[in-house]
Amino acid sequence: LLTDFGSSDAYVGVMKGVILSQAPQTRLVDLSHEVEPQATLEAAFLLQTAWRYFPATAVFVCVVDPGVGTARRRIALIADGRIFIGPDNGCLSAALPDEVRGARANAYAPLPVTLPPDLLAVSIENPTLFRRPLSATFEGRDVFAPVAAYVAAGGTLTDLGPRIDQMQAFPAFAAPRRSDGLDGLVLHIDTFGNLITDIRGADVTATTTFVTQGWRFPLVHTYGETKRPAAIVGSSGFVEIAVPNGNAALVLGAGIGDRVRAVP
Amino acid sequence: LLTDFGSSDAYVGVMKGVILSQAPQTRLVDLSHEVEPQATLEAAFLLQTAWRYFPATAVFVCVVDPGVGTARRRIALIADGRIFIGPDNGCLSAALPDEVRGARANAYAPLPVTLPPDLLAVSIENPTLFRRPLSATFEGRDVFAPVAAYVAAGGTLTDLGPRIDQMQAFPAFAAPRRSDGLDGLVLHIDTFGNLITDIRGADVTATTTFVTQGWRFPLVHTYGETKRPAAIVGSSGFVEIAVPNGNAALVLGAGIGDRVRAVP
Amino acid sequence: LLTDFGSSDAYVGVMKGVILSQAPQTRLVDLSHEVEPQATLEAAFLLQTAWRYFPATAVFVCVVDPGVGTARRRIALIADGRIFIGPDNGCLSAALPDEVRGARANAYAPLPVTLPPDLLAVSIENPTLFRRPLSATFEGRDVFAPVAAYVAAGGTLTDLGPRIDQMQAFPAFAAPRRSDGLDGLVLHIDTFGNLITDIRGADVTATTTFVTQGWRFPLVHTYGETKRPAAIVGSSGFVEIAVPNGNAALVLGAGIGDRVRAVP
Repeated sequence: LLTDFGSSDAYVGVMKGVILSQAPQTRLVDLSHEVEPQATLEAAFLLQTAWRYFPATAVFVCVVDPGVGTARRRIALIADGRIFIGPDNGCLSAALPDEVRGARANAYAPLPVTLPPDLLAVSIENPTLFRRPLSATFEGRDVFAPVAAYVAAGGTLTDLGPRIDQMQAFPAFAAPRRSDGLDGLVLHIDTFGNLITDIRGADVTATTTFVTQGWRFPLVHTYGETKRPAAIVGSSGFVEIAVPNGNAALVLGAGIGDRVRAVP
Repeated sequence: LLTDFGSSDAYVGVMKGVILSQAPQTRLVDLSHEVEPQATLEAAFLLQTAWRYFPATAVFVCVVDPGVGTARRRIALIADGRIFIGPDNGCLSAALPDEVRGARANAYAPLPVTLPPDLLAVSIENPTLFRRPLSATFEGRDVFAPVAAYVAAGGTLTDLGPRIDQMQAFPAFAAPRRSDGLDGLVLHIDTFGNLITDIRGADVTATTTFVTQGWRFPLVHTYGETKRPAAIVGSSGFVEIAVPNGNAALVLGAGIGDRVRAVP
Repeated sequence: LLTDFGSSDAYVGVMKGVILSQAPQTRLVDLSHEVEPQATLEAAFLLQTAWRYFPATAVFVCVVDPGVGTARRRIALIADGRIFIGPDNGCLSAALPDEVRGARANAYAPLPVTLPPDLLAVSIENPTLFRRPLSATFEGRDVFAPVAAYVAAGGTLTDLGPRIDQMQAFPAFAAPRRSDGLDGLVLHIDTFGNLITDIRGADVTATTTFVTQGWRFPLVHTYGETKRPAAIVGSSGFVEIAVPNGNAALVLGAGIGDRVRAVP
């Protein structure tokens, strides 16, 4: 489960109640419920860093849904055996290969992409699977939870609705190459204050220098190597700016969307 | 589990350890642990919005307990097959039908109500089910968790202690009707900043106008219909004041207990 | 699971994904993920208050690890049947008897202690149990989660690496006796603002007075006995300073590390 519901309400608990009512054997794991409200890009990034570490039978439900109650589609798809369920707003982008998502030009915005023929995706439209009456504000409870329980209990994806050949997706997370180096940006700030960028570890070398807001940082291999702010290839494969035993976001006054350049 | 323990301590984890030690097959679900400290009314409201979505075999444990260590009773009751356990301070009100709880006059305060004869409720007094020594400050660990594990593992409710025919309950969540409309108030503010009132969706019509602090809001059906602050019948069946893609509590400077009138 | 990962990232969820991929039957319980970043002492204290309440087959994984990526050891040990896994930085101290940990002189700092011969502890070094490639920043995912899954699924502790006879440990949590009474300090501040000290309940009497920052507090038995700030022997067996239905840390302006003396 990945949502922007926070932990002070009972919304997440209610979704779990619905799932366990229909599929009592389900193992429930929280990815995060602290996504910024309606931050579909952040949800897509967190899902990308997480999904490959789950069992091949996992079902991921993402409810970060600014368009709840409107005519936007709800979708489900299968990637590497795992099933992804959520609104069609880009939050499920991580399930798609980078080449399907395409390259980023400037900032990230969801765009319709054409799905490869071997990827099964459907539009969730079968009302017999929904809870009734259907709330206009809490489809997590009335649509996504019962549909997730249905497939977790062995239901077939094509029972959910008609097959689709397009969906909304964010461009692949990868800083584009410009004449003066890679033009990265901060995608996420983690609990420790590390600035996680879209610069891929595979695209940099030991001599690359990272520049943000006039500061310059070297690349190090571990936090233990230095006591000064530095760049490191983080656990999700992207370069992050860190202050050893400190909070880079506070120290550097940096935020999501800030530019970080990687110069050879 | 529904508590005001927060997530920075190990209190909730310890309760789960106790439950799993006694009833290893229990599935544990968190409703919320972010209830405001000692806010029994908020706990009662969250429980009301949640419990019907859980399996018919669910056991709900509410530990929001300003009187911990004093002589207040601890109770357990059965409603619609589900079992509710907690201190006798109103936090379990949601398990009772509205007609038993009675109507609200002004603000909400717990009052003793007489239980219908077909509702089984007991006072938890059997010390052989408690952990020893009994802490004066953490009955969640030493009383409520072991008792919940006992009934979750199939123990009989009447083993817990003598039957009771009265308990503390908050009046039913419903705004009373005055000469100029419904006299509602804000019961809860959710993660998104929505102001959830005690005005029931069934008591309003498409032309009802909602008034708080001099502001007037129309009733809409979905967040997508408007970009302005509006009232909507929320997922729990109560009217809430929302700012689409914004935070109504911040925008309107509103708080729990604020009056919201519904005028025809 | 006990970490300083917070709840806004997917780090904890990813560890759970890894564990369930290897050991699908594992029951996962969160002790806390809100330990202050890199606060190994706080982690050790929370673990001490919690671990005896878990089943005898429990596996505790503590990832509060300022030295991640450096040459510090990773260890695993068995105490009372339960298994403890984490970095060798003191966070697993709670698994050791007080006499092994020794007495505190002034503040708490981890020191190498010699383990009794009947206590099985190993250095985690077997690379075939780790995920590859090994991240320099997220050993929770690549080392501790797979190792925990290995032992949770029945793997033998000695498969993890060579036996060790020393580990880092904090002195036993106990205020030392001075000529004018016990010289305690605040170890932890809980969600309710209670100041939890290292003064053991067994070391005080009904007439002990507690002194911090010029304030003097009596010892009471329950929060219900008084409406004024007071000391109480808390649920973990240590004296805590509490303000009934209030927040002692805010009211008294107190923090972790503050001295609290207990005078007869």
